Amino acid sequence: MATELERIIKLTRGVPPDEALPCELVGECCAQALADHGEVLLQYNPATGFAPLRELLAEQAGAPSDALLLGNGSIQLLFFLARVALSEGETVVTERPTYDRALTAFRTLRLNVVGVPMEDDGLNVDALEEAINRHRPRLLYTVPDFQNPTGITASTAKREAVVELAQRHDVLIVEDIPYRLLRYKGTDVPSYRELTPRHTMQLSSFSKLLAPGLRVGWALGDPALVARMAKVAEDAYITPGLLGQGVVYEFLRRGHLEPNLRTLKALYTPRLEALLRGLERELPEGTWAHPQGGFFVGLSLPPGADVRDVARVARESYGLVVSDSGGFFPDGDPSRFVRLPFCALDENEIGQAVARLAWAVDDSRKGGR
Amino acid sequence: MATELERIIKLTRGVPPDEALPCELVGECCAQALADHGEVLLQYNPATGFAPLRELLAEQAGAPSDALLLGNGSIQLLFFLARVALSEGETVVTERPTYDRALTAFRTLRLNVVGVPMEDDGLNVDALEEAINRHRPRLLYTVPDFQNPTGITASTAKREAVVELAQRHDVLIVEDIPYRLLRYKGTDVPSYRELTPRHTMQLSSFSKLLAPGLRVGWALGDPALVARMAKVAEDAYITPGLLGQGVVYEFLRRGHLEPNLRTLKALYTPRLEALLRGLERELPEGTWAHPQGGFFVGLSLPPGADVRDVARVARESYGLVVSDSGGFFPDGDPSRFVRLPFCALDENEIGQAVARLAWAVDDSRKGGR
Repeated sequence: MATELERIIKLTRGVPPDEALPCELVGECCAQALADHGEVLLQYNPATGFAPLRELLAEQAGAPSDALLLGNGSIQLLFFLARVALSEGETVVTERPTYDRALTAFRTLRLNVVGVPMEDDGLNVDALEEAINRHRPRLLYTVPDFQNPTGITASTAKREAVVELAQRHDVLIVEDIPYRLLRYKGTDVPSYRELTPRHTMQLSSFSKLLAPGLRVGWALGDPALVARMAKVAEDAYITPGLLGQGVVYEFLRRGHLEPNLRTLKALYTPRLEALLRGLERELPEGTWAHPQGGFFVGLSLPPGADVRDVARVARESYGLVVSDSGGFFPDGDPSRFVRLPFCALDENEIGQAVARLAWAVDDSRKGGR
Repeated sequence: MATELERIIKLTRGVPPDEALPCELVGECCAQALADHGEVLLQYNPATGFAPLRELLAEQAGAPSDALLLGNGSIQLLFFLARVALSEGETVVTERPTYDRALTAFRTLRLNVVGVPMEDDGLNVDALEEAINRHRPRLLYTVPDFQNPTGITASTAKREAVVELAQRHDVLIVEDIPYRLLRYKGTDVPSYRELTPRHTMQLSSFSKLLAPGLRVGWALGDPALVARMAKVAEDAYITPGLLGQGVVYEFLRRGHLEPNLRTLKALYTPRLEALLRGLERELPEGTWAHPQGGFFVGLSLPPGADVRDVARVARESYGLVVSDSGGFFPDGDPSRFVRLPFCALDENEIGQAVARLAWAVDDSRKGGR
């Protein structure tokens, strides 16, 4: 046991495991992209990015290419969007809990962030309506598919209710969908863009579908808004990183994405199952989401456990590092919430991690140590 | 003549010509970097960038690696620096004229920008001292080698005087040196970092030395300040674009930079000479810098010419597009200033461009058309 515990397990960031990175294919695609488009990829380009990729992604989405902006990952595009769409002090509504880096972006812009509680099937719609009436937000930020950090997917009924509110109160829905294509079972729910394209800006990236280091994200929405975001992007970095965009273009053009998604699903599905089994076994008094895809399971610790104390005991006594849950909460207390990312650990490590977490919960409920 | 004029000549942006981009070598370096470091380059990394490149550049500069921050081009690093080092309303001193995108970065942060006039050998030191006494700036932004937009290099005597003022008044000198290694004749002047490392943050990039599309820039200075910049960078984009950094690392490791610089100098030297000859021939009443390197010659039009009128006539009557000179001026009027970038045009086009500019000047002085 002592020996096992000497190996620290990090249950923190939502990153793909190294073995999920298709290094060889990326090398081939990069060589091809440079051979075909070297003088474009190595030169300054418009801030909208590598035109062939922009056109391909827009076409796949059934949109004109000027509705799409490429950037260095989606979080910076969210920042650009919030910068052009809102002024200091205006209100953004987010899920509670939500993606911590989105909160950082909003806070950097000194926006007022109001959290609306998550339920098993998405946002609490009554609370959303109340928040809208009270704060008159301009923008709703949501991760509707396999949410970071809870793993929850919003139901169709919930989405329709949200759409109705957004249309009635003229709120822009920003749907961030980096995990949408990583569904391990079940069937897709309509995206906000499908339900209400005029009230939606869609964000995503290839960080979870191909490789984070490429830094390729995109935003898709109203061309006028996209043009304003592109101007801010140009002021920020002139041209986004182009080699990664060339790689993604060639990867898609060659049809590598679908097989890569199949490989990822085959790798991640047993990890999710191992985590859910571990929770059943080790923490039967807790409650948790049952995601059908993505990177995370959101856990609510058993009553009486304090998340900060559990995190401290887990780290100090059992070599298990979990995220600072407070980071995911726009307001209020993390209470008993813990985010469990499952993709970067193998089944054995996941079982170990849940066991350690359960020991820390036990210790904490007994009064800590 | 009409036929010749049908071809529009753009004398606007300081970009390398496509033929200066070493596509094949970049392809080889990228393949090697992915083969050697694929799992690192495709994964999330610290916001400080690809560690081997960080270490190599720091070592070349005789600095510890934590003094160096890699980023997606240098303009964004300037923005991060200004964001952590200054608060809204504080003052930055720049050269007048200066790099337009630097002004945009400072204005985005709502800083107070004060311009100090350029002379043939660098900043007017008396005006700088007056500006320091009056505005108590925290930061001086300077492009001391082959300045954008004038082409002027600050003399050693001027640099020493600036250093003395910076030390006395505790002003951080930000020296932006993207053109420093592109010297076509003469000998190097000591950098500000060499003269006063503790009061200097050095910025540069590989956009002019290798390829802009790679988006690899760096900042070198006080490790504590660099750490704060890296935190802001992480909030902005998590990880910078890594493929470009892998390419630059391999390009340097293989010793390609020196031969590439020789190739670039051989390409650009006759272009600079053609521009200076053209000015002698076509605009003898103007005055201009005589740069020994870089991308630009700053021209002061003959007395009586109005730069905005000349730009309009050049564009409308002669198919010559020049930059908006106003963009380079933090305050005051562009007066008769025109920036002439010479690297992206061949000698014949440069001769044509200067001739067209001279016609526009003639027309403008005769009262326009």
